[in-house]
Amino acid sequence: MKIILDAMGGDNAPKEMLLGAAAAVKELGVEIIAVGDEEKIAACAAENGIEMTGITVKHASQTIEMCDDPTSAVRHKKDSSMVVALRLLAAGEGDALVSAGSTGALLTGATLIAKRLPGVKRAAIGTVIPGRLQPYLLLDSGANVECPAEMLDCFATMGSVYMEKVMGRREPKVALVNNGAEESKGTPVYVEAHQLMKQNPAIRFAGNVEPREVPDGAVDVVVCDGFTGNVILKLTEGLARFFTGELKAMFKKNAGTMLAALLMKNGVREFKAKLDADEHGGAPLLGISRVVIKAHGSSNAKAVKNAVRQAKLCCENGMVEAIRENIRR
Amino acid sequence: MKIILDAMGGDNAPKEMLLGAAAAVKELGVEIIAVGDEEKIAACAAENGIEMTGITVKHASQTIEMCDDPTSAVRHKKDSSMVVALRLLAAGEGDALVSAGSTGALLTGATLIAKRLPGVKRAAIGTVIPGRLQPYLLLDSGANVECPAEMLDCFATMGSVYMEKVMGRREPKVALVNNGAEESKGTPVYVEAHQLMKQNPAIRFAGNVEPREVPDGAVDVVVCDGFTGNVILKLTEGLARFFTGELKAMFKKNAGTMLAALLMKNGVREFKAKLDADEHGGAPLLGISRVVIKAHGSSNAKAVKNAVRQAKLCCENGMVEAIRENIRR
Repeated sequence: MKIILDAMGGDNAPKEMLLGAAAAVKELGVEIIAVGDEEKIAACAAENGIEMTGITVKHASQTIEMCDDPTSAVRHKKDSSMVVALRLLAAGEGDALVSAGSTGALLTGATLIAKRLPGVKRAAIGTVIPGRLQPYLLLDSGANVECPAEMLDCFATMGSVYMEKVMGRREPKVALVNNGAEESKGTPVYVEAHQLMKQNPAIRFAGNVEPREVPDGAVDVVVCDGFTGNVILKLTEGLARFFTGELKAMFKKNAGTMLAALLMKNGVREFKAKLDADEHGGAPLLGISRVVIKAHGSSNAKAVKNAVRQAKLCCENGMVEAIRENIRR
Repeated sequence: MKIILDAMGGDNAPKEMLLGAAAAVKELGVEIIAVGDEEKIAACAAENGIEMTGITVKHASQTIEMCDDPTSAVRHKKDSSMVVALRLLAAGEGDALVSAGSTGALLTGATLIAKRLPGVKRAAIGTVIPGRLQPYLLLDSGANVECPAEMLDCFATMGSVYMEKVMGRREPKVALVNNGAEESKGTPVYVEAHQLMKQNPAIRFAGNVEPREVPDGAVDVVVCDGFTGNVILKLTEGLARFFTGELKAMFKKNAGTMLAALLMKNGVREFKAKLDADEHGGAPLLGISRVVIKAHGSSNAKAVKNAVRQAKLCCENGMVEAIRENIRR
């Protein structure tokens, strides 16, 4: 299997991208097509002693920066690593694409170059978020700030397929974020989306999920518009940072609490692992006709490798075809 | 000062309401008008040895239940403790009202009976939420699921007045929740609200606040629609429950971690106090022509007493008049 990697995207490119690629070749048995500035990639590999076996480099002279406007960057930076990578993907030269570059540009580029599946009005970003019982998929987690009801219903179908095919959940429970359990709750769009999801034969609808229950992870797929999804994703990150910061301060208080920190070491390590988003690989762009995985902008080698694993799982389990089938129903 | 108390509202009524009222009389030097079933109140006071000095009971034969439809409950249960309390407030027989009953009914009732201030299209619920640096006011935290831009701008003014007058913040910073710092971010409503808030002379506008930064408490007033506000408020509660649960489980692991729990006791107590919403009293209904405080449905005596303190502070500091003045600007 060939995975195309945007070697220049992300805060730690190209070094962590290449380290992740090398680890993926070794551990996952995939081939990598690394797209980016040939000279820079060669220099970085040499400097860091990165084993390039299994990694083919395709040259691209430009890079899309985080500050670039997504649409004009995709249109005008035609020789950027991301655009070249997307063209390779659309031409079938690789099975999937992984990028840690600008989310907006990747979404726009994937839509313009790799195209959406028939029946999908907008692609969504799905993010796997740690929960109390188990991780859950949140979508849309930020791509589309405004979503009509049919779009939310489509997200529900795509999220369900992802959790079943890629994450191995059996008959995943799908719920709509809302400010109450009753089907009359929420804005008119949410009231309508509830009705559509209730009648959607492609999902197992669990009704509304209130924000207080979302972190439980009792439902597999949590559906909302991208504005709300961004709030859920980023507030979860912010509160995790707040709470772990308070815990650290508690440990540092005096000799007794420092001893406590030693005694709690294993527990804290397990808790951190539970909260570690890098473990779950990247976020899939759902609704695109090819597999596209967005890795976190600050991805390190481990996160890149896990994003490649995620891409591989999507391909092996026929995620795109399953979404195509289920949207058609 | 006379505070009207809905003695039958909330999960722990009337006992905790009366205990809170008695504590408020003693500690805050206020008089309480307790509205509810005379017989039940008398029996509860006798049974629990509650000192009724300073508490006048006004009879009301009905109670609005949490399952009642807010609007029809207010219209049809005319002799309910909440409606009678609101009529007393509108008639000027007390300075403020505290209720732990149904939020929806209180909001509807306050709007219909105590009336909104001129220029206020909809009242908002403000909730003070613990933050890393300091608590912040979130509004609207659930009253209005859909809000046009002018309404968000009005919430900004009311929230700023509350934090300045009642919580003693000097020149409070007011920010708009959004999925990015740039003023072009968000839905069209949020883009417009940003412009209105930027030109609002009654507030010190700090721009957009991203959800990840909200828990920092670096801004005093966090403005959003009630759907988003419900997500922020309830997700914060849910994640606090998740994290404290994980911490408890960590402590219970073995003899070493149980010792750690003992060593950390003070730190954990301080952390819990920081997160304790009861400390901040109830949530003000902002935009009503009288002071109305919504106490949490599960309020205990301490929370009721603190809600009465909050009501007293609102009256003493001329909150309603200040909102009236600032909305007029």
